[in-house]
Amino acid sequence: MTASSRHAMRHKLAIQLDPELSRQDGLTLLNMFIALVIVVGIVLAVLQTEPMVVTGNEHWFRYSELIFGSIFLLEYLARVWTSVENEKVKSRWHYIFSFVAIADLLAVTVAFSVYLGNGGILLRLLLLIRVLRLARLGRFSMAMDCIIEAVRSRGYELLVSAIFAAALLLMSSTLLYLVEGPHQPEAFGSILRSAWWAVATLTTVGYGDVYPVTALGRVLAGFTAITGVCIIAMPTGILASAFSDAIQVAKERHRKLPKILERDKD
Amino acid sequence: MTASSRHAMRHKLAIQLDPELSRQDGLTLLNMFIALVIVVGIVLAVLQTEPMVVTGNEHWFRYSELIFGSIFLLEYLARVWTSVENEKVKSRWHYIFSFVAIADLLAVTVAFSVYLGNGGILLRLLLLIRVLRLARLGRFSMAMDCIIEAVRSRGYELLVSAIFAAALLLMSSTLLYLVEGPHQPEAFGSILRSAWWAVATLTTVGYGDVYPVTALGRVLAGFTAITGVCIIAMPTGILASAFSDAIQVAKERHRKLPKILERDKD
Amino acid sequence: MTASSRHAMRHKLAIQLDPELSRQDGLTLLNMFIALVIVVGIVLAVLQTEPMVVTGNEHWFRYSELIFGSIFLLEYLARVWTSVENEKVKSRWHYIFSFVAIADLLAVTVAFSVYLGNGGILLRLLLLIRVLRLARLGRFSMAMDCIIEAVRSRGYELLVSAIFAAALLLMSSTLLYLVEGPHQPEAFGSILRSAWWAVATLTTVGYGDVYPVTALGRVLAGFTAITGVCIIAMPTGILASAFSDAIQVAKERHRKLPKILERDKD
Amino acid sequence: MTASSRHAMRHKLAIQLDPELSRQDGLTLLNMFIALVIVVGIVLAVLQTEPMVVTGNEHWFRYSELIFGSIFLLEYLARVWTSVENEKVKSRWHYIFSFVAIADLLAVTVAFSVYLGNGGILLRLLLLIRVLRLARLGRFSMAMDCIIEAVRSRGYELLVSAIFAAALLLMSSTLLYLVEGPHQPEAFGSILRSAWWAVATLTTVGYGDVYPVTALGRVLAGFTAITGVCIIAMPTGILASAFSDAIQVAKERHRKLPKILERDKD
Repeated sequence: MTASSRHAMRHKLAIQLDPELSRQDGLTLLNMFIALVIVVGIVLAVLQTEPMVVTGNEHWFRYSELIFGSIFLLEYLARVWTSVENEKVKSRWHYIFSFVAIADLLAVTVAFSVYLGNGGILLRLLLLIRVLRLARLGRFSMAMDCIIEAVRSRGYELLVSAIFAAALLLMSSTLLYLVEGPHQPEAFGSILRSAWWAVATLTTVGYGDVYPVTALGRVLAGFTAITGVCIIAMPTGILASAFSDAIQVAKERHRKLPKILERDKD
Repeated sequence: MTASSRHAMRHKLAIQLDPELSRQDGLTLLNMFIALVIVVGIVLAVLQTEPMVVTGNEHWFRYSELIFGSIFLLEYLARVWTSVENEKVKSRWHYIFSFVAIADLLAVTVAFSVYLGNGGILLRLLLLIRVLRLARLGRFSMAMDCIIEAVRSRGYELLVSAIFAAALLLMSSTLLYLVEGPHQPEAFGSILRSAWWAVATLTTVGYGDVYPVTALGRVLAGFTAITGVCIIAMPTGILASAFSDAIQVAKERHRKLPKILERDKD
Repeated sequence: MTASSRHAMRHKLAIQLDPELSRQDGLTLLNMFIALVIVVGIVLAVLQTEPMVVTGNEHWFRYSELIFGSIFLLEYLARVWTSVENEKVKSRWHYIFSFVAIADLLAVTVAFSVYLGNGGILLRLLLLIRVLRLARLGRFSMAMDCIIEAVRSRGYELLVSAIFAAALLLMSSTLLYLVEGPHQPEAFGSILRSAWWAVATLTTVGYGDVYPVTALGRVLAGFTAITGVCIIAMPTGILASAFSDAIQVAKERHRKLPKILERDKD
Repeated sequence: MTASSRHAMRHKLAIQLDPELSRQDGLTLLNMFIALVIVVGIVLAVLQTEPMVVTGNEHWFRYSELIFGSIFLLEYLARVWTSVENEKVKSRWHYIFSFVAIADLLAVTVAFSVYLGNGGILLRLLLLIRVLRLARLGRFSMAMDCIIEAVRSRGYELLVSAIFAAALLLMSSTLLYLVEGPHQPEAFGSILRSAWWAVATLTTVGYGDVYPVTALGRVLAGFTAITGVCIIAMPTGILASAFSDAIQVAKERHRKLPKILERDKD
């Protein structure tokens, strides 16, 4: 194989791995295949914890580990090989020690995690980060930017409403501790214990494993539930207006973009 | 009966069945009658599963089956007969093998479903599709278009927030499996089992049949509930801004429409 | 007392009862007093049902009935007397037989409801309608118009999302009936019974008195909970954009109003 | 120490305590330290109620009380000393008797609250007010103003939806009392008792400790849950549009501000 044909092949592979290089929109076939492998890998990792599924099929899970590990290893090596095609990457060593490459290498070892025992399951979820990285490609990238921009642009408003929520949580926990504590020491015997009830109430989850039984406790719980609903309305309202703005901005940028490009042509 | 009077009658019936032909706004009397029959048919199908209602009244349900089945059969035949009145339909055979007509024929057989036993109930719900088809008439059509347009226009943003939600679901299931699994093997003994708890918590349903009992498990559950509330705020915010835009667009199109028609007159 | 002084007094009383006559903003002292009496009357009606409160205090509740009944009777008579001050009212008899006056007369009899036994409690809540009538005065009126306008302007969109919700409710009830019915005949033995679970899940209330126990039932319940969250997001989003528009319109009308009045002066 | 050097030191300290004096953006180092001390103080107050944490560590909590109390005392004295640096404060005595200073003095005594027994815990939460005061500094102030402005600008709309919610609460409590009361006297035996169920349902918390068992009761509960979801959608929608407006206004004010300052320079 000549050097030039090797270069051409490396270039093709680089474009397949990273569609941004050729300014393509969307995922390439190779990206889709890797995305599928990652999703199947996660599903297998989840199934592997269920004794009713695993019992009698241990060897199949072993084989799948080997296959998925090998695919990720191949992908990692391909990425290292083609890394120099990207202008932003100074040298292959720079790429190998970059955060992204180390995360990939970790994912490879993680894919062989069946030999790590139960603790390996948490590591396996590092594959999720890879899913999010794929989500940055194509149109998803724009949608994700919109969401991140919306959350970031209202960071302080969201923080203030988080502080309000925390203050409310603390206040209702303390009040219920004082009112219900003497009657239900197991459930409301300290502010920390009351906080478990308060979180379940303010988020409107309401498991119902603990709840006030005194009249005053129920009145306070009612107020907590109502203020909880209002507290939830705040971030929703903030985000709604933020999304409205973010998408407006994204549209306008999109509209201006072609004009700027046209100007470049002149 | 002469051919021309038959044609006139067919035309009248076609307009009664499909008000779009005469550009009428809203439902015709026949449409309303059929809508009523469908709704009553669904209510009967629901009641038919309740032993306390059926016992002693089996024959009434048999009779109702026959009546509703006959009405749908008549309607189906009428639609086939009048199908050629619609310019978009090439021939009667084209109509008979169209998706809509086959769904209608299915609904007819389904209406006689008492002879199909219990499995027929699911089929009976195919009548719901017919309700949605009726919903496409008149002003409902505009409202439905608005909603569909709003959801479609933010498809990628909604998908990204769905991916976020799925990642959160997976993460909290795994963490609770690791923390609570050893203490409650029945409820948190695998990631799949934990997922049942995680769904109930993230959606803030909170049945309370399973919940963490360890201190660390409760802290993690609290964080899950709070992030669940934030995750719910995201699609709500996205849809709120999408509806705002969709209705804006619908209004402007409505405003421009008469002008275009006026231009046509000139 | 001369006729003119009687007229002057009637006019003063009419303004006190209905501030709209003198284009005043907000409630008059008399309105506030009546509002207070209504609220206290409702609170008493609520307390009257609690045996722990009533036992030993029956005579106090009897007295309060008499007092509140008398106040409402006086107010009713005053309204009848002053009704002719309002230009829109043709004659006193027209007023007496108007919907508003009959509702007031009913409230009077209702206020004496202790003699009606338990059934009187529901009637007593008719007082609530009077609260809402008071809410129509002053700035509340503008706020209420905004809310009603917002809900009305998106009537079709809200109806379509209600139809979606109903279809979803029916579908999940049927599926859970088919899947869980054989295992829990008491809770999921018919579509009607499943509907109780489905409502609690789709609204994210989640009492936890009934919940699926089979694997497939839990998967379906999970999907139901998630679609429930999305279904809730729809009306919220629709209303958010509707309020935004309604308040915009209200502001512009408010801005234009003074200009029109100035023009009138010229 | 000369008077001038003492003045310079007082000025420096005043700026450290109140960054608004030097028009600085954000918190000073001293502010951050005090914020940290407050948060740690609150965490300690919460932990102090949990017997599992306190037992055996009582002396550590005593020491921490002394340290935190001393820090707040020092801060209080520093604020009193530097109060005259602020032009808005007429004299030191005016400051000492201001609401803010009295709240601070209370916080000092509260910090020594271990000697007050259990009742001191509620007082300790007064420290929360101090957190909110710090939240008024820097960019947080703008975000908080946005939120307060949004809630305030729609005060009447929110109040009307609160009245709607209260009416709904009263109505569903009464209906369930009438329908379920005879079957479950403990849970639905009076309107007050039903209200506990109604609050849990309307806010979609749904503890599941009480729930209707009759068919009619369940139908009414279903309607309550559905209207509860709609009621929650209303304030969310109102706030969403309010935030959108408030942030728009804040941006425009921000844009105009530099121009006004430039004009001042000319």
